[in-house]
Amino acid sequence: MRADGRAPDQLRDVRITRGWLDHAEGSVLVEFGRTRVLCAASFTEGVPRWKKGSGEGWVTAEYAMLPRATNDRSSRESVKGKIGGRTHEISRLIGRSLRAVVDVSALGENTIVLDCDVLQADGGTRTAAITGAYVALADAVAWGARHGHVTGGKQVLTDSVAAVSVGIIDGTPMLDLPYVEDVRAETDMNVVTTGAGAFVEVQGTAEHAPFDRAELDALLDLAVGGTAELTRLQLEALARDLDR
Amino acid sequence: MRADGRAPDQLRDVRITRGWLDHAEGSVLVEFGRTRVLCAASFTEGVPRWKKGSGEGWVTAEYAMLPRATNDRSSRESVKGKIGGRTHEISRLIGRSLRAVVDVSALGENTIVLDCDVLQADGGTRTAAITGAYVALADAVAWGARHGHVTGGKQVLTDSVAAVSVGIIDGTPMLDLPYVEDVRAETDMNVVTTGAGAFVEVQGTAEHAPFDRAELDALLDLAVGGTAELTRLQLEALARDLDR
Amino acid sequence: MRADGRAPDQLRDVRITRGWLDHAEGSVLVEFGRTRVLCAASFTEGVPRWKKGSGEGWVTAEYAMLPRATNDRSSRESVKGKIGGRTHEISRLIGRSLRAVVDVSALGENTIVLDCDVLQADGGTRTAAITGAYVALADAVAWGARHGHVTGGKQVLTDSVAAVSVGIIDGTPMLDLPYVEDVRAETDMNVVTTGAGAFVEVQGTAEHAPFDRAELDALLDLAVGGTAELTRLQLEALARDLDR
Amino acid sequence: MRADGRAPDQLRDVRITRGWLDHAEGSVLVEFGRTRVLCAASFTEGVPRWKKGSGEGWVTAEYAMLPRATNDRSSRESVKGKIGGRTHEISRLIGRSLRAVVDVSALGENTIVLDCDVLQADGGTRTAAITGAYVALADAVAWGARHGHVTGGKQVLTDSVAAVSVGIIDGTPMLDLPYVEDVRAETDMNVVTTGAGAFVEVQGTAEHAPFDRAELDALLDLAVGGTAELTRLQLEALARDLDR
Amino acid sequence: MRADGRAPDQLRDVRITRGWLDHAEGSVLVEFGRTRVLCAASFTEGVPRWKKGSGEGWVTAEYAMLPRATNDRSSRESVKGKIGGRTHEISRLIGRSLRAVVDVSALGENTIVLDCDVLQADGGTRTAAITGAYVALADAVAWGARHGHVTGGKQVLTDSVAAVSVGIIDGTPMLDLPYVEDVRAETDMNVVTTGAGAFVEVQGTAEHAPFDRAELDALLDLAVGGTAELTRLQLEALARDLDR
Amino acid sequence: MRADGRAPDQLRDVRITRGWLDHAEGSVLVEFGRTRVLCAASFTEGVPRWKKGSGEGWVTAEYAMLPRATNDRSSRESVKGKIGGRTHEISRLIGRSLRAVVDVSALGENTIVLDCDVLQADGGTRTAAITGAYVALADAVAWGARHGHVTGGKQVLTDSVAAVSVGIIDGTPMLDLPYVEDVRAETDMNVVTTGAGAFVEVQGTAEHAPFDRAELDALLDLAVGGTAELTRLQLEALARDLDR
Repeated sequence: MRADGRAPDQLRDVRITRGWLDHAEGSVLVEFGRTRVLCAASFTEGVPRWKKGSGEGWVTAEYAMLPRATNDRSSRESVKGKIGGRTHEISRLIGRSLRAVVDVSALGENTIVLDCDVLQADGGTRTAAITGAYVALADAVAWGARHGHVTGGKQVLTDSVAAVSVGIIDGTPMLDLPYVEDVRAETDMNVVTTGAGAFVEVQGTAEHAPFDRAELDALLDLAVGGTAELTRLQLEALARDLDR
Repeated sequence: MRADGRAPDQLRDVRITRGWLDHAEGSVLVEFGRTRVLCAASFTEGVPRWKKGSGEGWVTAEYAMLPRATNDRSSRESVKGKIGGRTHEISRLIGRSLRAVVDVSALGENTIVLDCDVLQADGGTRTAAITGAYVALADAVAWGARHGHVTGGKQVLTDSVAAVSVGIIDGTPMLDLPYVEDVRAETDMNVVTTGAGAFVEVQGTAEHAPFDRAELDALLDLAVGGTAELTRLQLEALARDLDR
Repeated sequence: MRADGRAPDQLRDVRITRGWLDHAEGSVLVEFGRTRVLCAASFTEGVPRWKKGSGEGWVTAEYAMLPRATNDRSSRESVKGKIGGRTHEISRLIGRSLRAVVDVSALGENTIVLDCDVLQADGGTRTAAITGAYVALADAVAWGARHGHVTGGKQVLTDSVAAVSVGIIDGTPMLDLPYVEDVRAETDMNVVTTGAGAFVEVQGTAEHAPFDRAELDALLDLAVGGTAELTRLQLEALARDLDR
Repeated sequence: MRADGRAPDQLRDVRITRGWLDHAEGSVLVEFGRTRVLCAASFTEGVPRWKKGSGEGWVTAEYAMLPRATNDRSSRESVKGKIGGRTHEISRLIGRSLRAVVDVSALGENTIVLDCDVLQADGGTRTAAITGAYVALADAVAWGARHGHVTGGKQVLTDSVAAVSVGIIDGTPMLDLPYVEDVRAETDMNVVTTGAGAFVEVQGTAEHAPFDRAELDALLDLAVGGTAELTRLQLEALARDLDR
Repeated sequence: MRADGRAPDQLRDVRITRGWLDHAEGSVLVEFGRTRVLCAASFTEGVPRWKKGSGEGWVTAEYAMLPRATNDRSSRESVKGKIGGRTHEISRLIGRSLRAVVDVSALGENTIVLDCDVLQADGGTRTAAITGAYVALADAVAWGARHGHVTGGKQVLTDSVAAVSVGIIDGTPMLDLPYVEDVRAETDMNVVTTGAGAFVEVQGTAEHAPFDRAELDALLDLAVGGTAELTRLQLEALARDLDR
Repeated sequence: MRADGRAPDQLRDVRITRGWLDHAEGSVLVEFGRTRVLCAASFTEGVPRWKKGSGEGWVTAEYAMLPRATNDRSSRESVKGKIGGRTHEISRLIGRSLRAVVDVSALGENTIVLDCDVLQADGGTRTAAITGAYVALADAVAWGARHGHVTGGKQVLTDSVAAVSVGIIDGTPMLDLPYVEDVRAETDMNVVTTGAGAFVEVQGTAEHAPFDRAELDALLDLAVGGTAELTRLQLEALARDLDR
């Protein structure tokens, strides 16, 4: 039994609130338990210079954490004047994960930037961010189509994408770790899959002890179950009306 | 009649939600219409080096805006590697305004940092930030007292503080400007007052035309009415139970 | 009686020396007592990118302080690699104040940058900077007209602009505060007016105690008297021959 | 058959030259084909502030690339004034990988910094860096023991660590990708294992197409074979005399 | 005959005004013709960390140029967020030159920082800065002695130091080049000597054509004559009363 | 007799290895004893903006040191976020020295960047860098001619350039100082000459005691002998086949 009463293969309460912002072309407040990430998708015509004339669009992401998202206040990266390695790493992960399901030629020369700002952190912020960002992205793509910016007639999104963290705690593989579990995990893995269940990213790290093939397999099984459930929640959220 | 149907001397709908974050010692989501600012107060023992041994505490603030708080996405200051002048100016204003009602010797050698992050901007973000930050500050001071960090027996907060924007539009002084009014204002003023109605900050700027003494007086009257109402809402919010 | 023997409503000795630099299109060494600011106006053809094709010009300002302008040496912002909040705030104030009397369409697509470098600081550096910068600006505009860069036939400068600090010390409102008075002021206000006496900026701050309407009114009266006298000194300076 | 004539499960020529630098406590020039990374281990007494008094040591890494390591010259990060996301990400990966085989309490309050500078890049720079850095680390630990800085009597290194890249190209899983293969890979994975064959890091990325469990398994098999061979080469290198 | 009517071995009008600032322990406005540099010497007790406990003092310098010191406005290094190579190079040269005549053990654990800010540039700013900075340094050392901070009883300054530029223009070696000559010089040399006539720095650069030994010798002769005259002017300035 | 057994006028063992990198248009690993510098010349079509349309090319250099090139590890400038004064100064020196023998109009609108990265430092890194960079530059110019980018028919290189350090140690002038001699030198000079023996740069610094004309003359004699020998070694290296 886990501290919060969940079964090892159970997700925390996941909530996906679309249209949380008035200005953004797509926006989602995603909650995995107490982890709360605001994902805003900004659709703009045109692409970065190195993409100009390619006929292809671009999707990228920026992840950040508010200073008091965490238990102790951390300094602002804007005040420090530089972005930390962790921030860089997660921003790149989110961008890659989303691009795995985007047909950039169907998008045309348009750019969608996903801003994922962690309002409150309780473990799994990067996986919540990917899961929420996909929904915001879908809304922004729909906005682009509705407003005549996406005109190719092809599907921009080839599939959906969702992510979850898994880890081994006291020898037991567990799904969707909150902070108190995360710090105790011997091995920690973030898994990103498509709606169809294929892998987009697998990032496993031995935090306290190297892991063997059997443990890796158990973690992957657990993760695939989790992202399947998240995929269902994403579709459910996208099926709801967004009256704005 | 204003675009949103308000009378010239009427505030937008103001909502003050305490305890919006789980980790912070004080936290408030403050809304002035569509403007939405998250204010987190972090209480820590100890003071900056230049205050050590003084017996006095320190209260400071940092203001920032999420990239997609605005209609068009703006670049992150952390990515640009430097903080803009506007951000600096507003952070300093919030800090000064709050310190005006803090007895630093009663606070003892403790520091309270107020993080005011604009989640959505529709004019008046700095005045909403000050108004919300005061409530978060009050909760953090209470937390400090409850946890035995504030022991002087004196009141740390000598009064409350609230702020509102006023401006002259087509010759008419108006209270609490949303973005569409703000850009059209000939003169724009931000006024910070104490609960007792005294001035803490008065910042008037001729945006399109210099203003005379009569206009200045009319704006001040309007502002004082507005902050009195905000003071009432702050007290109301602080009177509610915060079950955490 | 004040420490330097002045009456409460008396300015310090103000000196405005035009043409202090050989290269700049306009330049002024302005002195308010021991406060000494070098204001250089640089006239260049063309405007920033966001103004291109607008037919309008641009006027902006940068304020800075030499490391040993003050009693204790301060670090160079270039060495620290970032500009402080105070510097940002004052640069923006000077730029806004000057633009209030500039008809940018009469200026045409030209840019005038005002560099205000404090060589020695003894209180009131921002107000001295604005007062001196106006004179340097006037010389740069005249230079632009003489050299055929300003051709619209309209007046570029719609009025003059001057600034002064006022404050309440031991209950008495006083004009043009030197450093020793500034640090003791309960309330500190910087007022910028046009030559015609209208307000451009009013920035009042409760340093040690909130202020009431009567105090505010007394400070405004004092300031308006001070800027009127500064306006006279600016005109006198501009009336002198500048033999270069 | 691959462009360079290798079998799919064959490493490039790997050379590990110890003692390439005269000053460093451990140093290795490691070559995976044309990829050439200089790994320098610097042993210093003392630990970062947040580790002081813990009785534990610290091992960290910094990765960088010379401007002309690549086919086209890239700008220096020192000139740009900031470190890119890729650099950050790889530095963190190297540090984590090495720490997985370090008993920090056996190291005592000493710090070892691994500088991995890519002199020439032809794919697999991060895996070459980890493989070479382990050898440099082993030499630095031995230096620390020889000079009486490591005195606990316990083994500092609990195992060895090596890394290799694998990828799927035209449907075939391949080991140790040079640049020309890397850019064509549908899926790209970096795997770090201990000498005992357990996983330390598994980072798989769908570059052009999501991958399924069977592909993941094939890649892991291939990688484990590769790191086993690299482990053998590391031991061989460490068995040679280092006459300095 | 030179454009300004000087003989090839003649200095420009040199003016050394001591006590130009009220706050600094030593200050000089030095003018070499139209080149105008403000040198401020700040005396503080204590030394940088790496000198603590050495019993020795430290003397260092920072050189900078106001944006409109030159014919065209240059961007502020504080705004750019970094210091250029030329600024760095000259700051280091000034510091080294002054330290050549300072007995750091006689100074005791005190620091003197020389800020050399170019108010107007017309060639030879670094040599004017060194020449003026020496005089400001002498005043700061005297201040330190008068205020009991320098107590060793030994002479802190072992000699004086002065600097001048020389160059070959159309085949003729010339002393103290203004900007119009500087840009045309085939070879450009900055020479720093002690009052006793020994060399502290010799920096010769072939701007347009390599130079031979005879040319080098002629330039050195010229420079030594120039610095001897500057030494005389420094002594004269220091002999004057400084009534503050 | 010197510590390493050399005569006062003898160079260390100098090795110039061309083609050390596979990607660069010219590359040299140059060794002066234990000092080891990797010089990479990158030839690109086009010039910086301020040179566009001039018909002239541009040659520039960047110098840097690996963190563990030195006896104690130094921090990376990329991590610190700024380039130090020494790095700036040496980069500028290398660039100027090379440009002294380049006919930029013969080069056409092409740019050659010389990256000089110190892999190991034992004194004289800047002079080794210049000496090696010239050879890399010559190879890059030849590459440009072979590939049809340099078409003017004129010689791009008007001469060769080499550099050496000299210093006075215990009263004796010595050639090519390793670190142990460098720190003890009373006077330190870096001399850059053309193959024809004319001076390009002469930079003499009194490290511990000012120097007189006789000492300066002795140092120059010694340096000229050293660079003549280096010129011979450069020609020898360039005469060898570079089979790539």
